[in-house]
Amino acid sequence: MQSSPLLEHLIENLRCLPGVGPKSAQRMAYHLLQRNRSGGMNLARALTEAMSKIGHCSQCRDFTEEEVCNICNNPRRQNSGLLCVVEMPADIQAIEQTGQFSGRYFVLMGHLSPLDGIGPREIGLDLLQKRLVEESFHEVILATNPTVEGDATANYIAEICHLHNIKVSRIAHGIPVGGELETVDGTTLTHSFLGRRQID
Amino acid sequence: MQSSPLLEHLIENLRCLPGVGPKSAQRMAYHLLQRNRSGGMNLARALTEAMSKIGHCSQCRDFTEEEVCNICNNPRRQNSGLLCVVEMPADIQAIEQTGQFSGRYFVLMGHLSPLDGIGPREIGLDLLQKRLVEESFHEVILATNPTVEGDATANYIAEICHLHNIKVSRIAHGIPVGGELETVDGTTLTHSFLGRRQID
Repeated sequence: MQSSPLLEHLIENLRCLPGVGPKSAQRMAYHLLQRNRSGGMNLARALTEAMSKIGHCSQCRDFTEEEVCNICNNPRRQNSGLLCVVEMPADIQAIEQTGQFSGRYFVLMGHLSPLDGIGPREIGLDLLQKRLVEESFHEVILATNPTVEGDATANYIAEICHLHNIKVSRIAHGIPVGGELETVDGTTLTHSFLGRRQID
Repeated sequence: MQSSPLLEHLIENLRCLPGVGPKSAQRMAYHLLQRNRSGGMNLARALTEAMSKIGHCSQCRDFTEEEVCNICNNPRRQNSGLLCVVEMPADIQAIEQTGQFSGRYFVLMGHLSPLDGIGPREIGLDLLQKRLVEESFHEVILATNPTVEGDATANYIAEICHLHNIKVSRIAHGIPVGGELETVDGTTLTHSFLGRRQID
């Protein structure tokens, strides 16, 4: 029994955060109350604003509070002619951090999964087709996850690109850099053999 | 670079939670935006209410939004004549979960630490003395942490209790149940020898 119903309510609600169980929720609540009430208030405001104002970019479907996101609006990126297709907005973050890609993105917000009722429309492929027709991309890079569904989605999108005569590629799958052959699973090792590159 | 300043702001503010680094904050923000916006809004409301309305009980200094907390208000607990002194509100939770203590509490909100300017007044010992005079406790149990500061604080409070002719005790320190002697540190083992009990 908590001595305060409001405190109990806060602990319960903190558990909606991923990876937060009853013990961590309690620790977080006490920490904020004892040491950082202004931090707690700022967090509440940031949450309210983000949850109510953040929508999706009308071009790439990434999270943004504007009509079109910063990346889509960037003229240098518009001129690159490259489009990278990812499953989730968090994937964009991971790719941006590498600094290797200077084109634009398209976020599926999931992958094809007919059994769950998620077909091409649900992952926005009609919008993607419209962009392929209206804009001049010279390459589409498929960066969906290396899972059965991610691969199926990549194949489906590759066919659409072929129909529009646009070059399409899939990111490489193989041994992670710094990994050891001995500890890598068989499927990854098979991929790394199939995807081998000639040394000139 | 995040595509959305509001998202960036949310990720930054989530880091005020203990144990949440940049990666977890990002994961939390994306999880809420993608799967649980209503949960995020509820959390924001719970945070605002808790941070603005929760104060301290006028008797025991535990967190509560009332003048006097549930535990202090409970007549059965008032009749027990037992008072347990703890450092933090979270300690009360831990003790309540054992179901072994049916008296009331007093929360110091810290421990004596003269070098940091934390003296008897700062940890509410004037209020504690007032309670010892006005109410009829027949035992005070000192459950401060087994640290140098916690021990010093316990000794200080024990002297106050002796002045008021109230029986005072300290919770036992020794080998944790389920622990192994071999892996326990020397100080704990010393305590467990000093605190040995005769078997009748």
